[in-house]
Amino acid sequence: MKILVVGATGAIGSAVAGVLAERGHEVVRAGRTRGDLQVDITSDASVEALYAAVGRVDAIVSAAGGLFFGPLAEMRPADFNVGLQDKLLGQVRLALLGQHVLADGGSITLTTGVAAEDPVRGGSNAAAVNAGVEGFVQGAAIELPRGLRINAVSPTLLTESLTAYGALFPGVETVPAARVALAYVRSIEGPLTGRVLRVWQ
Amino acid sequence: MKILVVGATGAIGSAVAGVLAERGHEVVRAGRTRGDLQVDITSDASVEALYAAVGRVDAIVSAAGGLFFGPLAEMRPADFNVGLQDKLLGQVRLALLGQHVLADGGSITLTTGVAAEDPVRGGSNAAAVNAGVEGFVQGAAIELPRGLRINAVSPTLLTESLTAYGALFPGVETVPAARVALAYVRSIEGPLTGRVLRVWQ
Repeated sequence: MKILVVGATGAIGSAVAGVLAERGHEVVRAGRTRGDLQVDITSDASVEALYAAVGRVDAIVSAAGGLFFGPLAEMRPADFNVGLQDKLLGQVRLALLGQHVLADGGSITLTTGVAAEDPVRGGSNAAAVNAGVEGFVQGAAIELPRGLRINAVSPTLLTESLTAYGALFPGVETVPAARVALAYVRSIEGPLTGRVLRVWQ
Repeated sequence: MKILVVGATGAIGSAVAGVLAERGHEVVRAGRTRGDLQVDITSDASVEALYAAVGRVDAIVSAAGGLFFGPLAEMRPADFNVGLQDKLLGQVRLALLGQHVLADGGSITLTTGVAAEDPVRGGSNAAAVNAGVEGFVQGAAIELPRGLRINAVSPTLLTESLTAYGALFPGVETVPAARVALAYVRSIEGPLTGRVLRVWQ
């Protein structure tokens, strides 16, 4: 398959791109500043330019999108909107505009996270954004034509990210990025749609 | 208790305001164009002016917020952002700014909907927005100080809305607004926090 991975230079995206390449797929890596192609997922024009450059694909993977972390007591609506515009609407934009470049039977796989269901302190934006992406996936799956599918992968804290983010997730058992990457393979090569593939413990 | 109901002139809000008044609470009704006070939940300044006018309250209820309905195949990111800015960020704004005007032990109750879990055609925005509000409620509940609580009520289609929206929800058993209103009473007068109170069947 020809597969576009957006966020391909991040901890998850690079693992996904790597395992997909090992499995013989043709992988196009897109990133905000690195990769084969650059894209700003908060911009329609940038995403449309990416799809025009890549052409028809069999799968779109998104492992991209920023969130706002901070104490609820000090959070402002504009802070909260950061995650809505980036990880939520950014990934929805990749799906809405990407549905038209997918080959029949193709798939879209977005990324959420454990904080949708097990919230962390300072993570009310993460909880809302991840849950919102999961709601979108369930809602969009029932409308996609031509055998197109859409799923979300919900990883817990990556082993590779323990040093950077471990303080946010006390007591959480981490998973290696290579294991998280398998869930994307399951979404892309398997039959599921409208599902949240959780990679916890 | 002194209770602010935002969206108090809608089908749900008017039922909630009515039952709360019957139970002896002092109810302040706010609406976009009607009610005791007017508010635009998409504006920080408007919501702050509302809270300044109302003063300290024991409970904030939101039964407000618009969504975008339309076929996935034609949906644009800007369409999708309508619901993100209105029913999702609008209700989050009421909570973020409202936490500071609540008396100790006070509560916030937001409104989601069955489409978060049982999506409908044309409802991918509703699915995402409602799920996002539910994620926020779970995330915010663990951070609120002073015994403050936050919940969401998730109604299915109202009996009163069957004529207007019944075509979107084939086969759904409706519930009368008066029954949905009880879930808000449960959130306000009961001990729960971080919960989604579903009113289905």
